[in-house]
Amino acid sequence: MHDLSSDQVQTLGAEMHEMMTRLFPICRSLTGNGVRETFAILQDVIGLDVHEVPSGTKCFDWTVPDEWNIKDAYVKTPDGRRVIDFQESNLHVMGYSTPIDAEMSLEDLRPHLYADPSLPHAIPYLTSYYQRRWGFCLSQEALDAMPPGPYEVKIDSSLEPGSLTYAETLIPGDSEEEILLSTNVCHPSLANNELSGPVLTAFLARHIARLPRRRYSYRIVFVPETIGMLAYLDRNLDAMRSKVVGGYHVVCVGGPGDFTYIQSRNADCLTDKVTAHILKHACDNASIDSYSLRGSDERQLCAPGIDLPIGTLTKTKFENYPEYHTSLDDLDYVRPEHMGTAFDVYCQCLGLLEQNHHYKVTQLGEPNLGSRGLWPTIGGQAYRQELVHQLLALLAYADGENDLIDIAERHDMQASVLYPVAETLHEKGLLEK
Amino acid sequence: MHDLSSDQVQTLGAEMHEMMTRLFPICRSLTGNGVRETFAILQDVIGLDVHEVPSGTKCFDWTVPDEWNIKDAYVKTPDGRRVIDFQESNLHVMGYSTPIDAEMSLEDLRPHLYADPSLPHAIPYLTSYYQRRWGFCLSQEALDAMPPGPYEVKIDSSLEPGSLTYAETLIPGDSEEEILLSTNVCHPSLANNELSGPVLTAFLARHIARLPRRRYSYRIVFVPETIGMLAYLDRNLDAMRSKVVGGYHVVCVGGPGDFTYIQSRNADCLTDKVTAHILKHACDNASIDSYSLRGSDERQLCAPGIDLPIGTLTKTKFENYPEYHTSLDDLDYVRPEHMGTAFDVYCQCLGLLEQNHHYKVTQLGEPNLGSRGLWPTIGGQAYRQELVHQLLALLAYADGENDLIDIAERHDMQASVLYPVAETLHEKGLLEK
Amino acid sequence: MHDLSSDQVQTLGAEMHEMMTRLFPICRSLTGNGVRETFAILQDVIGLDVHEVPSGTKCFDWTVPDEWNIKDAYVKTPDGRRVIDFQESNLHVMGYSTPIDAEMSLEDLRPHLYADPSLPHAIPYLTSYYQRRWGFCLSQEALDAMPPGPYEVKIDSSLEPGSLTYAETLIPGDSEEEILLSTNVCHPSLANNELSGPVLTAFLARHIARLPRRRYSYRIVFVPETIGMLAYLDRNLDAMRSKVVGGYHVVCVGGPGDFTYIQSRNADCLTDKVTAHILKHACDNASIDSYSLRGSDERQLCAPGIDLPIGTLTKTKFENYPEYHTSLDDLDYVRPEHMGTAFDVYCQCLGLLEQNHHYKVTQLGEPNLGSRGLWPTIGGQAYRQELVHQLLALLAYADGENDLIDIAERHDMQASVLYPVAETLHEKGLLEK
Repeated sequence: MHDLSSDQVQTLGAEMHEMMTRLFPICRSLTGNGVRETFAILQDVIGLDVHEVPSGTKCFDWTVPDEWNIKDAYVKTPDGRRVIDFQESNLHVMGYSTPIDAEMSLEDLRPHLYADPSLPHAIPYLTSYYQRRWGFCLSQEALDAMPPGPYEVKIDSSLEPGSLTYAETLIPGDSEEEILLSTNVCHPSLANNELSGPVLTAFLARHIARLPRRRYSYRIVFVPETIGMLAYLDRNLDAMRSKVVGGYHVVCVGGPGDFTYIQSRNADCLTDKVTAHILKHACDNASIDSYSLRGSDERQLCAPGIDLPIGTLTKTKFENYPEYHTSLDDLDYVRPEHMGTAFDVYCQCLGLLEQNHHYKVTQLGEPNLGSRGLWPTIGGQAYRQELVHQLLALLAYADGENDLIDIAERHDMQASVLYPVAETLHEKGLLEK
Repeated sequence: MHDLSSDQVQTLGAEMHEMMTRLFPICRSLTGNGVRETFAILQDVIGLDVHEVPSGTKCFDWTVPDEWNIKDAYVKTPDGRRVIDFQESNLHVMGYSTPIDAEMSLEDLRPHLYADPSLPHAIPYLTSYYQRRWGFCLSQEALDAMPPGPYEVKIDSSLEPGSLTYAETLIPGDSEEEILLSTNVCHPSLANNELSGPVLTAFLARHIARLPRRRYSYRIVFVPETIGMLAYLDRNLDAMRSKVVGGYHVVCVGGPGDFTYIQSRNADCLTDKVTAHILKHACDNASIDSYSLRGSDERQLCAPGIDLPIGTLTKTKFENYPEYHTSLDDLDYVRPEHMGTAFDVYCQCLGLLEQNHHYKVTQLGEPNLGSRGLWPTIGGQAYRQELVHQLLALLAYADGENDLIDIAERHDMQASVLYPVAETLHEKGLLEK
Repeated sequence: MHDLSSDQVQTLGAEMHEMMTRLFPICRSLTGNGVRETFAILQDVIGLDVHEVPSGTKCFDWTVPDEWNIKDAYVKTPDGRRVIDFQESNLHVMGYSTPIDAEMSLEDLRPHLYADPSLPHAIPYLTSYYQRRWGFCLSQEALDAMPPGPYEVKIDSSLEPGSLTYAETLIPGDSEEEILLSTNVCHPSLANNELSGPVLTAFLARHIARLPRRRYSYRIVFVPETIGMLAYLDRNLDAMRSKVVGGYHVVCVGGPGDFTYIQSRNADCLTDKVTAHILKHACDNASIDSYSLRGSDERQLCAPGIDLPIGTLTKTKFENYPEYHTSLDDLDYVRPEHMGTAFDVYCQCLGLLEQNHHYKVTQLGEPNLGSRGLWPTIGGQAYRQELVHQLLALLAYADGENDLIDIAERHDMQASVLYPVAETLHEKGLLEK
């Protein structure tokens, strides 16, 4: 799965960035038509089953809120100039803003205006999902330039019983055991966090679906953050507990920064092991964060009592870059080559999940390698070629207890390099899985 | 239990030093009236049940020896001058000296005189509990100044069947599980080792008894060293094995030196964990010794097969100071402020024993903190305040497996700081114990 | 077992080197009369039972090959001069060479000539056990000096159904549990690898057999490498699995280099622990290799599923010295003092295997050492003599869980020094085994 040429990676990066460009302008939120439109477009990449969860549905400790939709919003001067304009950027409206249609002075409007003085050019991204309020977000510079008013203030939104929308697909494999790939679709015009996640996930799913065969089945899940993930888990947790053996929550994978992996809660699952091995060998400057430094839907997937064996693998992690949750996290910030690199590293990780067998030698004592063409027939010379090392490593530690990664790490080898040697021994009948 | 103001600590230090001043002149030993008098005075601080164990009683590998009492002792010159005088310091007589009343030359007396040339001003403290002999201890300087004699030599002691005396009390708590505080009462006029232990223990017991409620019951034990502790264990071991969950042997807690904690035998009990956490956060230069460096009654409490979950917490550990077991270990060596500091650190340790619950989250998935006023209702802004860190730490690792200290140490926090946050989550119904 | 004087060691070293000198000229191989002659001579040191395994016998993944014997071999010039002569060194003939009797040019002979340009003076040692071919080995210098021929080429060997020969003996001890000592006997005129192994093993066996008593029984095994060891295991594995508790594969023990120990596969057996302790205290520059760096018959003894609790202890490990598998590994390379040192270290290891009991205190609480003459009867003085340390170490940790090495290492002591103290406590009834 992970043998991609650099040409393939480049082409995929460009394709993904193009898809992000199509999806970028849509105003997504926890609920509403923005999410549905997004799924309609992603269907061009991978077939998805779309589900609706009615407002008011209890999901563990939470309740699905009313559905929010918005047509337009602005703050207009008496001469008709829109000083804040939703059409220009959907970040200008605080997510889940209630409707408003009024004339007011700057003084009255001011408590509803949000800016971040630390990034004076940027529009901050804010929401108020569970407390009804309305607000506009704008750059500090724009705020400072606003005359005293009066203003025509309008948010043409609706907040009514409806439903929350999520999508999923299952790509069957040789085993009913599953790898999970999940991602979030609730952010409006923000690129790294979070168009990169759903787009990479869709393209990974397409890539996996096109493979001639897969060891594992793949559960691909697109949900709004927190309540969407909880709604999904509420419906699927029992099946996931019995089937999911590994996987990733895919977020913030398109930035120029380094890879950061957030471990599962107890840092002891297969995904943690696979990812640490790949990051060590394939990425410079990658870092591994404990679950204490979580922030996305691993908060649900790995919560105590849920404890699915997954981690979150980011490239430019949320909160680690100043553009996070601002209008600066845009399509210039996320580049095709970043998406390509992330695709490649994810493929290496998924590839190792597939390859990481527990091999076991079939013979007592060292097998007769010479008779199988795996060892020189003239004996006595001292040599330690790489292949010999690899054969000896496997024959010693392929005891059914150690998996491929254990054997590789014990010998400071790369599991992906050891894998073909293990497969040769498997074909010769000397290792069983 | 551990929130003491510095005023309280100062007052308690003075009170404890005053009590030590009352107890200091009494000639205590393994047995005899000195121990009984000591208990009579300690009753002013905390009510105690006093028990007698007859001479000859078998206690595991040992036997309670005859009871020793002494009225007077001296070495007198022909002109009636006492060159060695028990009235001046009870250290002058080797503990458990048999009676003697004779006239003799210095030459004959010399084998019965004990001095320590390495501390020429100090009277050493020596005993001969299990081999009958008599002797006088004196400073090297005094010894060197003695004329050839003859001398009138008198020890007015008795060594006869009687009993060994110990005292205890039980302070009931919400649970029948117990915290043990034990200490030794067999030393004559010595301050750090060992009036500090029984006095601190008595004041801690008073403090605990005055608390409105306690999670645990507290077993408070005052015994002569070795044979006294073994006699106590012989009578109480079954109950202690089933009830004691933690606690301390309290010795050498009044000197100017640093805290040293002696771990339980396998360094794996709750007390070891609690104490390491407190010493790390509350004390500079504290050190932790393995059980190999034991010396007091942890030799009994943690012996193989007894293995109670306790440790010994000292401030100026036995053998670590030159004044140890000499007349220099006096009321000037032990200061009120040292006793106050020890009281404070013991309170912190006992407080953490009480607070160290195994919390467990009650919800699957991250709970809705916003609806409970624990999280901002406007989402999207990056922040990592201390409270948020603490909430996230608890919600991730309060899984019933980790206790409060585990969670605190995983996040490099202080357990006592995390405790109120845990209690808030407990009150909101999000954590159970 | 391990208290040898330096005189004894020196005498033994000389005796062993003399035995090596007798055995050196014999042309040993996997099979054939050279092995039988070797056993006949070793019988002078220790009685051995000799076994024959017929050619064609299946041993796990392998088959015993035809028996190889050789009378003479040479490459002769027309004028009758032997330019390559088996009588001069049996290394000149590739092991298991098929017979040849022909006249040929250098050009035709050349593919059958083997030299190692990296050691131009040395004859390399080569074999072709499982693929029928013939060949001569010679120094690069000799090869370069050969005129174009023609040559009379003769190898007077036979390769016919026969048998493989091995030898063993069992030295009974108090227990049926066994210590294994195995070694290889298939190398022709090579000294460190591998006359040193069988000679040291024979002398160790004689030393063990002469002891008045032994805790364990000793299984002593002399086999040709790989197929010989597999043949032995095929016949004895069940018994060995239930009886062998430790031991060594003895190879490369006579060189001037340092000790290297190859651990068992999972580095967790008693032999690993004992050897690490001895090497740390008794040898400078000793090193410990993981099983990944194996090369001799530990490849069989510790293979997955066999996993006997043994290791390989070398002095000048195979492949670590340039003379390895060449004519330079001769009787000048292996010196009497090296053999003596190896004997001494092996005796220390075997001695510790015998001494390493799990002791357990018999008393609850600290025992009364004074009453048994193990502690001063005058109490109160601070002292920490070595004996006191040793007594305290044993009384604390002799709990039936820790063995002698555990207790020694916990206190940074030498187990052999702690052993007599443990035995004293055992005699006094304070420790049981």
